[in-house]
Amino acid sequence: MTFVNQQIILAERPKGMPDSSTFKFVEKDIDELKEGQILVKTLFVSVDPYMRGRMEDAESYIEPFQVGEVIEGGAIGEVIESKSDLFQQGDVVTGMFGWQQYYAANEKEIRKIDPSLAPISTHLGILGMTGLTAYFGLLEIGQPQEGETVVISGAAGAVGSTVGQIAKIKGAKVVGIAGSDHKISYLKDELGFDEGINYRTAKDLANEVKRACPEGVDVYFDNVGGEVSDAVLTRLNRFARIPVCGAISSYNLEGADIGPRVQATLIKKSALMQGFTVGNYSERFHEGAKQLGQWLQEGKLKYRETIKEGFENIPNAFLDLFKGKNIGKLLVKVADRQYGK
Amino acid sequence: MTFVNQQIILAERPKGMPDSSTFKFVEKDIDELKEGQILVKTLFVSVDPYMRGRMEDAESYIEPFQVGEVIEGGAIGEVIESKSDLFQQGDVVTGMFGWQQYYAANEKEIRKIDPSLAPISTHLGILGMTGLTAYFGLLEIGQPQEGETVVISGAAGAVGSTVGQIAKIKGAKVVGIAGSDHKISYLKDELGFDEGINYRTAKDLANEVKRACPEGVDVYFDNVGGEVSDAVLTRLNRFARIPVCGAISSYNLEGADIGPRVQATLIKKSALMQGFTVGNYSERFHEGAKQLGQWLQEGKLKYRETIKEGFENIPNAFLDLFKGKNIGKLLVKVADRQYGK
Repeated sequence: MTFVNQQIILAERPKGMPDSSTFKFVEKDIDELKEGQILVKTLFVSVDPYMRGRMEDAESYIEPFQVGEVIEGGAIGEVIESKSDLFQQGDVVTGMFGWQQYYAANEKEIRKIDPSLAPISTHLGILGMTGLTAYFGLLEIGQPQEGETVVISGAAGAVGSTVGQIAKIKGAKVVGIAGSDHKISYLKDELGFDEGINYRTAKDLANEVKRACPEGVDVYFDNVGGEVSDAVLTRLNRFARIPVCGAISSYNLEGADIGPRVQATLIKKSALMQGFTVGNYSERFHEGAKQLGQWLQEGKLKYRETIKEGFENIPNAFLDLFKGKNIGKLLVKVADRQYGK
Repeated sequence: MTFVNQQIILAERPKGMPDSSTFKFVEKDIDELKEGQILVKTLFVSVDPYMRGRMEDAESYIEPFQVGEVIEGGAIGEVIESKSDLFQQGDVVTGMFGWQQYYAANEKEIRKIDPSLAPISTHLGILGMTGLTAYFGLLEIGQPQEGETVVISGAAGAVGSTVGQIAKIKGAKVVGIAGSDHKISYLKDELGFDEGINYRTAKDLANEVKRACPEGVDVYFDNVGGEVSDAVLTRLNRFARIPVCGAISSYNLEGADIGPRVQATLIKKSALMQGFTVGNYSERFHEGAKQLGQWLQEGKLKYRETIKEGFENIPNAFLDLFKGKNIGKLLVKVADRQYGK
């Protein structure tokens, strides 16, 4: 049997903000499976800010996407056909097979997830890379102590909203920075953040940080960079820690990202800034996922997903990431399960 | 007996580069010593870049100088008269008594040094705060491994020249950035640095860093900030460590210190920047001083001092720091010993 596989490929590298010309829909046959291969039908795909970086032809921690190739990214699928003893029809699996409807996977490219534990989509979110990013970045670099003040930018995003809740579990005071009053309400009323700052309406952001953090900032979990971070850095306490997770404000800049240099501030405060990617902690993913799962079951962690529907809407969902609209993890549902419920 | 004590006080806070109007010479009597006090005659005073920061009326890791008060700073003196059982006439002592000819010290403000171990001036340099700054900043934050590349800015200064030699002891490849060919020769020919870069004559500094560091930069010991650091940051390896010790390029700026933001670079390289001051390690000074003394005696550490003569020349010596002229530790000799040799 030959499946017709719809794929979304990188049509050209974007300059500045990606748009519809960045992507192209193509069809490609999938031939008979080879021995050991597994045919996976995509159910959910993840769209994440870091994928913008892979569209550049620049050296980074992860290989750039190639023009003409499928956009790679986290996805969840169901096994349709298997020539492997390790997988069988109906298994739900996750892997990096990305923006395509089917994928002929090798055994090592996918791993099974247990659909009875939590909604399967959470394995792209709070139980997946985004949850692990929050977990390791905050606890390994930020190391929040009870009573300290933790500030998070991009706080209503998938990573930020998890960071804040973990910081609360650790007894810190948590201040979230986000781009709408609706998001701020979500952070305070639903997730239990202590304070919120709407950076779009703040007249003097540094002053707002001062108001929200009268005892200064001990940990700043940075998802955005840019002027928001410039403002937070004016309020650091001595020995502050800054896990640098994302710089979404810079990803679509065509020119250089220019702002106040940080050196004098870091010296004055004996402060630490450390960039990281979740892959640095891959040997400890099991530990992190177990803890996150436990907190989720205990009701200590909440999450929200924004799920768009339809394979054809993946590029637009990705572009929405940069419009600051979504709350929580942004996913696209591509298909329903065929063999399980 | 009443001593007439010449002092240099902060006359006004400088805007931008300090000049002669920043300082004022005054005379003040020193009255009879109280019980427990020690009269110290100043022999050497230290002039250091960090003192510029204390001239600002700004929150920092150390209190600002007050207008009308003596400029405080590291100094070495000889005990002239003692009403303490812990000190006697002729003892050589060090403390923060600063820019004045005499000081009536309390017991806890000074400590004895052994003039037989090394020239007494080294206790303001390689065996004092500058050596300890190099030692802890490099080894605790930079953590150079054998075969790694360590880049140092302000490399011919008191701290930088020590950092490079310790990095060599640890088996690293060492590249120094300094502002004259004369300094570069000193670093390579006398101190054993592997490469040198003259940032004043380099046409494309990032390119020079690339040439000098074909395998990238694992540790960047930053004494200067500004454009020199911008250039080095383009060549970081994954998991690079950046001890941020000084930002002398910014200390006399009247406007903001603006340049490329570092966040995206730190993420791409999973790199760490950490500001520090030597005081963070005060509980381990004894350990550091012992190791530095041992390396000095074994001939593994060299140092150079630039010693100006005369109390009246202290302000000019301080201003010379910002002209990039001096090599090694800059000191002013104020008087000869009266009781010892």
